[in-house]
Formats: sequence, structure tokens, C-alpha cells
Amino acid sequence: MASAHIAGVGMTEFGEFPERTGRDLFGEAGDTAIDDAGIDREEIDALYVGNFMGELSENQGHMGPLMAKAVGIDAPATRVESACASGGMAVRQAVKDVRNGEADVVLVGGVERMHNMGTTGATGGLSVAADDLWEIRQGITFPGAYALMAQRYFAVHGGDREDLAHVAVKNHANAANNPLAQYQTEISVEKVLDAPPVALPMGLFDSSPITDGAAATVLVSEEYAEEHGLETPVAITGTGQGTDNLALAERDSMVWTPATEDAGQEAYEDAGISKDDVDFLEVHDCFTIAEVLALEGLGFYDEGEAITAAREGETTADGDLPVNLSGGLKAKGHPVGATGVAQVTEITKLFRGDHVNSDAVEDASVALTHNAGGTVASAVVHVLEVAE
Amino acid sequence: MASAHIAGVGMTEFGEFPERTGRDLFGEAGDTAIDDAGIDREEIDALYVGNFMGELSENQGHMGPLMAKAVGIDAPATRVESACASGGMAVRQAVKDVRNGEADVVLVGGVERMHNMGTTGATGGLSVAADDLWEIRQGITFPGAYALMAQRYFAVHGGDREDLAHVAVKNHANAANNPLAQYQTEISVEKVLDAPPVALPMGLFDSSPITDGAAATVLVSEEYAEEHGLETPVAITGTGQGTDNLALAERDSMVWTPATEDAGQEAYEDAGISKDDVDFLEVHDCFTIAEVLALEGLGFYDEGEAITAAREGETTADGDLPVNLSGGLKAKGHPVGATGVAQVTEITKLFRGDHVNSDAVEDASVALTHNAGGTVASAVVHVLEVAE
Repeated sequence: MASAHIAGVGMTEFGEFPERTGRDLFGEAGDTAIDDAGIDREEIDALYVGNFMGELSENQGHMGPLMAKAVGIDAPATRVESACASGGMAVRQAVKDVRNGEADVVLVGGVERMHNMGTTGATGGLSVAADDLWEIRQGITFPGAYALMAQRYFAVHGGDREDLAHVAVKNHANAANNPLAQYQTEISVEKVLDAPPVALPMGLFDSSPITDGAAATVLVSEEYAEEHGLETPVAITGTGQGTDNLALAERDSMVWTPATEDAGQEAYEDAGISKDDVDFLEVHDCFTIAEVLALEGLGFYDEGEAITAAREGETTADGDLPVNLSGGLKAKGHPVGATGVAQVTEITKLFRGDHVNSDAVEDASVALTHNAGGTVASAVVHVLEVAE
Repeated sequence: MASAHIAGVGMTEFGEFPERTGRDLFGEAGDTAIDDAGIDREEIDALYVGNFMGELSENQGHMGPLMAKAVGIDAPATRVESACASGGMAVRQAVKDVRNGEADVVLVGGVERMHNMGTTGATGGLSVAADDLWEIRQGITFPGAYALMAQRYFAVHGGDREDLAHVAVKNHANAANNPLAQYQTEISVEKVLDAPPVALPMGLFDSSPITDGAAATVLVSEEYAEEHGLETPVAITGTGQGTDNLALAERDSMVWTPATEDAGQEAYEDAGISKDDVDFLEVHDCFTIAEVLALEGLGFYDEGEAITAAREGETTADGDLPVNLSGGLKAKGHPVGATGVAQVTEITKLFRGDHVNSDAVEDASVALTHNAGGTVASAVVHVLEVAE
């Protein structure tokens, strides 16, 4: 199967920018990616936009045409929404278009504004990613749902808050030198454990922040890159998607995520690799427990084993399997619809040697992105490889 | 290019069902389509969901997984949103998956609840399809935007409210015997002209209604249909998409819709047909003026000429080019995210001979759907043909 080659990437600073609109953020990320690719805007055949809750944050749906205008193109533009996996799902549609010959050049971007949520706050907005009837109206929030998953994990597999604290410490350490990350500060295990509770066992530093930001990537076919002399050192060689029941209570298990497993298996098979070929990865650590579940769902650890991965240094920058070298959602920030695209931009920079943590992946050739929606009712995985 | 064959279709009654949830409506339409196709649920490889404003109408985003559960499948599920073109855009992604070999069997459905909008009403919800900064905050609504387009049309090309009234009369006449249509009643030109104004020149009967409903279609590859002995008398042979500036004020013209033109041209070329091959079509008549603009944008009439098409009987059921034999958005109803899928289900039934208006298309072999978002900032066109 043909690959989708990455010709350019762009990302805004992630942080708190209540004065910036979605179109402003998206425009900056898109312009950066287009400039990075060195292509003319007229060459872009299609645009995919990942956005989760523009309707609630800025009274704005129908973001396809709006974001096309923001980057100065008039290509057919489509918005994809899968909660916090919106960005990754947009990447997936773009990848399919490129490798199936539907398009030679596709711009895919994601954007979210989260500091404009009025009386409900970001947590109220995020609630539409869960099952309104059987979760939200019963009073559960996302921190609450992940807290249940963590409590259940401790009960079934063991582990404790200190194990999870190492996940946060690791991801903050990785973000410390990332100029686009929301939090460029290292933290200690003690700081995580002493932080105010959000929904125990999830404390403030177990939780990804509220973030405004955007990210974008230009994907091209191999033929197009060759014909136009584009440098595309990295390609997306595999894609996979999984879906599970939306409500946590309708799952067989609260500590196993079949959507992640399905997405991973499909992506490995699609790329013709096994998980043993993967050198490093970005996973969806919206809460510290989520990183643990992702590493198990993707097959890197047996059930109940990933809880100590960060603590034992296996997933740190100098470990055998670096995870979230960008800082992850936890420290880089989590502008929901942008996250899945930002994972691709960060891995591309890591591979290209223009990321502050590139030294950690000097000999690497295969990486993964894992982006999840809700309590992993949706998951999408991409395999990125250094192009031959 | 391979075609996506239609193995089954389903649709709920369109109307006012404030007591029914989106999942309930979608489940009914999906179950009907799956039963109609005669396939096992496990055979479905992917689900696409068209929905516009679930976040506002039922505090519910992330509808991919929710609707997968509603129809009892666990296939990868993705929601597509392009305002009132959400359904058609979902169909487009499904068509691409089938013909590119990404999937053998895809379920695509659309759903919208519009009678649960609280204090803002449906018009408030619909506003997120327009440009929030440059349209909604300036006080314009969708009836107002289409009223501007109609006034401008009258000024540039001539025509009057009575011409447009014939569009509404025609579409109500077509819906009169459609058991799933919201309004199964004929109306007169006088009734249209005497109706209360919404935003002049658009009166109550120039406007599509507020509707709850869902529609679904099962698409399969030709190979799959053959191997499994499925009857697929109709196939989608072409798809096209167009995008324009979101805000009406940022267009070159208020009476020409380049997104429709682009979508039509791409779809014709993709199917290897010309507009002269088209026997009948369903177009996006959210307001009477929208049907006129669609017929011109698709190339069936020169600019300024489609205004009298209904009045002169050219687009009536017994005319040369029947338009909106289902009753259209105007009389069948317009549950926004479902509309683009419903157009496919209605044309399929018309071709198969199990529609009340099938007699009007007895010798027909080529039909079109045209689904638009906002003031046609998005448009998607599909070519449907009687399968060989």
C-alpha cells in the first residue's frame, strides 16, 4: 500500500490564548505547514479539519470552509469530529485520500479553543464527548471517568498514585525544552502527589491542561514529492481505527481499551510492522492512567504491567521506548481537536532532527501516534517511518 | 473508477418527535437499511455518521461510537460535519472507502434532532453553520441570508415571489403521497404568497421546516455484492465536493454558488457523464431560492433562467427534469445531518420502483443528489445510476 509522505508541519504555541479565534490559530499552523512544505497553495487538493467543540467554544460549526479561508485555499474542506480523537481521525481521512490517489496534496489540521467556554467551563464542553444519557446526566465528568478507570486498575492490577506520578514527571521533563509546549517546567513526584485533587486518584498534575492551539501537516503522495523535488524524510505508512461503546458502563472492562487494541493492530498490519519495530511513540495521556492503558492496549506491555514503565525509566527519554517526547497532552497541552495532528508534527520534527528531544531518537526509524476520544470509545493509530 | 453499490436503504418518518433521541432515530434508520440489504452486522467494515448540531440539541458529540452501538455494530465509526451538508459529506467518505478497497461494506447514516433546542430555538442552533464573527454577531440568520440571496436574484435576473412559490407548490405536490414526508399535503401558490413572512421575500412556505429524523444506506463493493448474491440495482458512480468562503459577504456573487458548480463538475467527470445524461435529481431546497440556485450551479439552466422552471412545469413530476420527487427539504422535511443521506435513500427507492413517485422515473437511469451547507459554503454531489 502506498504511503502518505509528510512534506511539511506546523504548530502554534500551545497555551492560554482567549483573545485568539479558532481561525487565527488554524491559519498560523496551516501557513507554517505550507511554508515548511514549500508548496503553492493552489496545489492543495483537499483540506481536513479536526475540531471537537467549536459549536460550544465559539458558536462555530462548519469549520471546513472557515479554515480553508484561514489558510487561503479553496480546496474541498471537511471537518471530522471524534471528540479528543478528532485530529487523528482527520489525519486518517487525509492519509486515505493521498494513498488511494484521491488527492496528491492534502492539508490536514486540527484546532481547539478551550478558554472561551462561558458558564459551563471547559469541563462542561468536554462532556459532549461522553454519553449524555447514561454518563453526563448521572453527574460524571471526564476526570471522574478516568478516576474510575484508575481506581479499577489499582484494584485489579495493583499500582498506586506514585506510579502514575512518574508518568506526569516524565512528560513534564520531556516538555521542558519544547518551545511550543504549554508547560516547559519540570515537576517532582512530590509535587504531583501533593497537588489538589481533581477526582481522586487523579490530581491536578495527573490531568492534561485546558489548552488553545492548532497544528497542521501537509501530506503528499510519493510520486508528487518526487516530481516536485520535495523533501519528505518521514511518511505515514499505516493507519488504524477502533471504536467501542461510548459509555464506560457498557464496556466489558474498565481497564482494557479494545478501541486502542483494534486501532493498533490495524495500523501495524497496514504498515507491515510489528510493535517490536516501534522505536518511540506519542500516546494519548489526557490523564496519567490513560498513558498506562494506551501502552497496554498497543501491546507494548502485558495487562497490568505498564503502570511502572515510567517509574522504572523504560519510557523516559533515555529509556528503551521513549513515550511522549513532546511532553504529551499532559505538558505540551491538549487543544482537543489539534492533538492528533500535533502528535504527527512532533514526531516529524523528532525524526528530522529539529526537535529539542531529537537526540533521544537518533537511530530511530519507526514511531507511532495514538489518539483517543472520550474514555477511548474512539482510537486512531498511525505508523510513521523514516522514508527510504 | 469502481462504484459503490447500494445494498440497502432506510429512513425514519420525518417530523416532530421531541421525545425521540438521536440514537433512537439513527438506530431505526440503520436497522432498516441493514435489513433491507440482507447482510449480517458483522460484515460492516466502517460506519460514517452525518450530524450537524448534536452538541446543541442533545448535549451530544462523538456520535460515531454512539450510533455504532445504536445499530449494534462495533466497526470503526466516524462523524463528519459540514453543516446542512453533513449527510452528503458522510456519504462521500463512505463511497471513497468502498471504491478504494478500504472496505467492502460501509454503513452511512445521518441524523438530526431539531425540536430540543431550548431557548435559542432551531434557528439559534443553525447559526453555527454561518460565520459567527461576520454574520451571526451582525444579526443575520439563515432565513435572512437566503432572503438576501433571493432579493439579489430578483434585482440581477428578475423573477418574483410567485415564481418561487411554484417551487414550494411542486415539492409539496411530490410529497403528498410520500409516507415518510413531514408534510403530505398539497398547497397552492396563493397559500405560499399569503403565508406569514419569515424574512422577505422568504415566507413560511418558502422555508424548509424544523425536522427530527434519520436516514441510512448500506454501500458495498461490486465484488462483495456478487460474491454474496446481493441485489444492488443502484450504484453511486460519481462524487464531487466544493467549498466556498463561509460568509456570504466574502463571495464574489450572492446569486452564483461556485461550491455547487465545483461539486457538480467533479461528480460528472468522476462518473463519466454530462449533465445532459441526468434524468432527475434531488437538490438542496432549504429555501425555494436555493433550488433555483442549485439548478443553475449544476448547469441545468443558465444563470437567471431557473427561476421559472417550476412555474413552467419543467421540474414537476411530469416535466422533463423532475426535481425533488421526494418532496425535497421543503416538504419531506430537513433533519439537517440526515438530509444528504435521505436524498440517496429516496433516489434508490425511486429507481427500485418502491417509491410513490417511481412512475415518474420509469425509464430513468441517471440521477443526482445535491446537498449544501450554510449558504452553500459547502456542497456535495453524487451521481446515482441504475447498475448494469
